[in-house]
Amino acid sequence: MGAEYDIRRLDLDRIRAARDVIDPLFLDSPCYPCDALGGALGCSVSVKLETANPVRSFKGRGTELVASRLAEQGTPAVVCASAGNLGLALAWSGRRRGLDVTVVARRLAPAVKLDRMRTAGVRLELVDGDFEAARERAVAIARERGVRLVEDSLDIETCEGAATIGLELVGAVSAGDVVLVALGGGAMATGVGHVLKALAPGVEVVCVQPLGAPAMTLSWRERRVVTTDSMDTIADGVAGRFPIPEVLDDLLRVADDAVLVREASIVAGMRLLLEQAGLVVEPSAALGVAAVLEDPGRFAGRHVVTIICGGNVDLAAYRHWVGG
Amino acid sequence: MGAEYDIRRLDLDRIRAARDVIDPLFLDSPCYPCDALGGALGCSVSVKLETANPVRSFKGRGTELVASRLAEQGTPAVVCASAGNLGLALAWSGRRRGLDVTVVARRLAPAVKLDRMRTAGVRLELVDGDFEAARERAVAIARERGVRLVEDSLDIETCEGAATIGLELVGAVSAGDVVLVALGGGAMATGVGHVLKALAPGVEVVCVQPLGAPAMTLSWRERRVVTTDSMDTIADGVAGRFPIPEVLDDLLRVADDAVLVREASIVAGMRLLLEQAGLVVEPSAALGVAAVLEDPGRFAGRHVVTIICGGNVDLAAYRHWVGG
Repeated sequence: MGAEYDIRRLDLDRIRAARDVIDPLFLDSPCYPCDALGGALGCSVSVKLETANPVRSFKGRGTELVASRLAEQGTPAVVCASAGNLGLALAWSGRRRGLDVTVVARRLAPAVKLDRMRTAGVRLELVDGDFEAARERAVAIARERGVRLVEDSLDIETCEGAATIGLELVGAVSAGDVVLVALGGGAMATGVGHVLKALAPGVEVVCVQPLGAPAMTLSWRERRVVTTDSMDTIADGVAGRFPIPEVLDDLLRVADDAVLVREASIVAGMRLLLEQAGLVVEPSAALGVAAVLEDPGRFAGRHVVTIICGGNVDLAAYRHWVGG
Repeated sequence: MGAEYDIRRLDLDRIRAARDVIDPLFLDSPCYPCDALGGALGCSVSVKLETANPVRSFKGRGTELVASRLAEQGTPAVVCASAGNLGLALAWSGRRRGLDVTVVARRLAPAVKLDRMRTAGVRLELVDGDFEAARERAVAIARERGVRLVEDSLDIETCEGAATIGLELVGAVSAGDVVLVALGGGAMATGVGHVLKALAPGVEVVCVQPLGAPAMTLSWRERRVVTTDSMDTIADGVAGRFPIPEVLDDLLRVADDAVLVREASIVAGMRLLLEQAGLVVEPSAALGVAAVLEDPGRFAGRHVVTIICGGNVDLAAYRHWVGG
């Protein structure tokens, strides 16, 4: 078991046990067929809706585990870098357990994410630059202040939390189906992928990342960490340049494919989700639909499940993208 | 039991048993606190989200019972009048049980509801005039063609289905809380109210109807059926002029209050639900928020649960109302 654990970070028993720790508010999210969306996309589409909870993203599943662990250990304070959703979720989970939460975010992060984190009582520190600058600064704060650092996708609790989505998908998919997972740091893709490969091995796990922030996909393709010098995408929730080696190892084990999509497709995906499914989503949550739009033949006639991973979006920007 | 049953149409055991008949896709909808919305309204707000299912409204709960009963009886065809959501839900439930579904709707019903019913394989008959004209025509079709008539709110299955929302709310509310229920024909208000009065008697059940379609509320206040000559509201899902006596009797037993709200408040409610909760809803689903907006003092500091009962809305109209 020890050696096994060293090699495989993700463990089905621990993922199952996670359900007992996570507030039920974040579990058993709706998963339902959306005929209108399927009609527009030429396949049978189900959405797994991770926005109908207090933090409007899937991140609460992981932060419940993180915060619970920290509270058990008597850790009083944590810091993390976040595009917004992790910080919001950590604020929610931390507040209930008396944790002092500091979040480092980009100054140009969506205002709605920054505002909600402030309202949620987060100590917010803003940095210029991209998400990697925020990660650097969070590491520095942890070191300087002796505060516990939470690292999305590296900390196994963030992967195990996301993996509980996979447990809920198992009953909704059959061999030959496709599950589309937004790919950023990799917690969701590896977590969901691990569960599906174990319990529904005939299901294809396709990760989707923006062409404008392709580091993890390039790494998956080359089977080694590939970093990029810059990035340019509206999908702020999945934008990173430095893949984490341990997470790439996990991803190589569980992803059947990793595809890159254009910004225009992400916008078209957001528009379809609004028009055909009545869902206002952030760009990262439209990556799955974007992937179908870019390669309809691959998915034609199949049952495709796309995880709607977050809905925290500035409405002004949303209207600008989607049109009003 | 016989006499009891004559007097009380709604029965807790039958409502509990309904859960075994209804497709789980329509059950256990998300119910979660929305701090941003609560902040804007000056109270603690939870939403019970009935739009995250294949028909995007709560009506599937009732049509599952209706269609299952009809299929058991070997009834091949049904007709109903609908503002759209009942027809959509009956199409969904009927298709799975081989039922031939005819829906009579207003010619001016939201195009999205008409289109989706057509796509769902409904025989659609359109009438000029309001919902009461559609009800008349449905009765005539049933008589002429010998087809089974389904009457929303009168047919007990429609109330029992909606009442399962109440079962799910019981664990989410405490004495002193308020549950806000949109009031149209009365199936949802009586069903949810019946369960709450039985299992959570300290919770206030407040029905909300548009000032522009006030017949049931006026009837509740006068304790006798009051009809109106016309109506004028954007909340098409709850617009009727002829309350059903049996449903009024039930409502008198379970509603703590029935309030009327202005059109401007419904629009403001839709806007708040978009801006603070990321939810695109049809006007009927904003009635609860509208009620809080019109009487903030009544709800200040309390925990308010509002049922988001439907999300089928024409986006062009929505944008016109909410602004873009």
